[in-house]
Amino acid sequence: MISPSKAAEVLAIFNGQGAMRMLGARIVQIDDGMAEFELDFRDELSQQAGYFHAGVVSTLIDTAGGCAGFTRMPEGSDVLTVEFKINLIAPAHGEKIVASGEVIKSGRTLTITQGKVFAHKNGVATLCALMQQTLISVARKTQST
Amino acid sequence: MISPSKAAEVLAIFNGQGAMRMLGARIVQIDDGMAEFELDFRDELSQQAGYFHAGVVSTLIDTAGGCAGFTRMPEGSDVLTVEFKINLIAPAHGEKIVASGEVIKSGRTLTITQGKVFAHKNGVATLCALMQQTLISVARKTQST
Amino acid sequence: MISPSKAAEVLAIFNGQGAMRMLGARIVQIDDGMAEFELDFRDELSQQAGYFHAGVVSTLIDTAGGCAGFTRMPEGSDVLTVEFKINLIAPAHGEKIVASGEVIKSGRTLTITQGKVFAHKNGVATLCALMQQTLISVARKTQST
Amino acid sequence: MISPSKAAEVLAIFNGQGAMRMLGARIVQIDDGMAEFELDFRDELSQQAGYFHAGVVSTLIDTAGGCAGFTRMPEGSDVLTVEFKINLIAPAHGEKIVASGEVIKSGRTLTITQGKVFAHKNGVATLCALMQQTLISVARKTQST
Repeated sequence: MISPSKAAEVLAIFNGQGAMRMLGARIVQIDDGMAEFELDFRDELSQQAGYFHAGVVSTLIDTAGGCAGFTRMPEGSDVLTVEFKINLIAPAHGEKIVASGEVIKSGRTLTITQGKVFAHKNGVATLCALMQQTLISVARKTQST
Repeated sequence: MISPSKAAEVLAIFNGQGAMRMLGARIVQIDDGMAEFELDFRDELSQQAGYFHAGVVSTLIDTAGGCAGFTRMPEGSDVLTVEFKINLIAPAHGEKIVASGEVIKSGRTLTITQGKVFAHKNGVATLCALMQQTLISVARKTQST
Repeated sequence: MISPSKAAEVLAIFNGQGAMRMLGARIVQIDDGMAEFELDFRDELSQQAGYFHAGVVSTLIDTAGGCAGFTRMPEGSDVLTVEFKINLIAPAHGEKIVASGEVIKSGRTLTITQGKVFAHKNGVATLCALMQQTLISVARKTQST
Repeated sequence: MISPSKAAEVLAIFNGQGAMRMLGARIVQIDDGMAEFELDFRDELSQQAGYFHAGVVSTLIDTAGGCAGFTRMPEGSDVLTVEFKINLIAPAHGEKIVASGEVIKSGRTLTITQGKVFAHKNGVATLCALMQQTLISVARKTQST
């Protein structure tokens, strides 16, 4: 279980991401070292063959990994993605995708996560992407525009 | 120079991606083995600190790499991303980002690209992401929903 | 269980790699969709701080992933690494490392694996590397030099 | 140009790597933000088809990238590979391979490099690998065994 204050912080990250609202992503669950999000298909999320765009799949799993990692970072910190690598192993074709990230190693500076994305089509879930990600914990800044 | 028919095909891919319309991406240039796209900032593209979301940066450069690779693929084929890896090397902070992909090696089945993304802020362009990508050429399908 | 002929083929790959002999790698197990190798430390395998060199760790897990993938490829084929990505998540410090690769998705052309490497020191195993790999099945050639 | 003390430090890293001696790697050049190494073929460096093993290619370019990055790190620090991703884009077939790494971005904690490996065969150099790497600067430890 994560603490109430950590829960508030990770929700603030998710809610603070315009990109999650644009996509229409929903939180399935967030807990210590893990986060799971889902996203319904619509045309604006597609690539040319009508599947979820690889970039949309990447955005959802990058955020799931980032939130998972953030649950293990000190309060008052912010999380940035250093890098990630994603294999699109099957067309992301279906009514929705579900992306789950989990922490593999959480260090003082860097946190490593892995993630999986499943495409759900007619009640069948197919693994469609695998991700490996490096996150960095940084001091939180007050945003200025 | 790419042929008129190849130009029409690559435009059809770009235009056929709902995700590019959702983001608001524009084509800067497409030519043999390269593609460059740009995208203006707005709140829906942000992560929690007000930068372009890593996933949005990834989506734009994945597509730029994919279109670059596609210019070298046989007519009648379609392009899918096998995998990519991206380093977010500076905050993608600014009025717009510009993503350019170029083909490093184009084979019969697989094509390898690299890409760069620059964030433009107050007239200064900062390299904010580096990508390395593997694409596969597949037979084009008629889309069915 | 893999077939006797597949077992012979995968052993031929391992034995045919001068690099495995140079390192001194041993097979722990090979089965359908998985392979596990180990390697004792000696000075020639080190980086500057006395840990196993990241490249040595990479070589062992690349081969474990490749052999795992090869067990799912058609007989008469050969396996090549298209690409891999490895996170070195802890110093590979100890008497030996154990690298295990497993197939996540095996397709007609491409096979995706993941791998883990553990460093064993004084009886304690520490996860020191995570890998994600893309393999390609190619027609086997008679080697000519 | 790097300073004499930095030159001494980077040579100490190269010389301190048993793996470089085992491979038989030679320094072609090291300068500010770049390093280039080469390696002659012999059977112990091979994979099953008689090419340089992907892991050997990876080891050489990982070290080239690491030394390139190290030239930009503060004196008294040590360099560790956080992660790298490599595409093997052509068989590494020939008399020797030449691996060059260059710094793309050098930060206080993390340094990002890219690298290329060329295989030289009968006087022709072929690009055979592309790498993207994240390094971390850590306080140097006195080695204890």
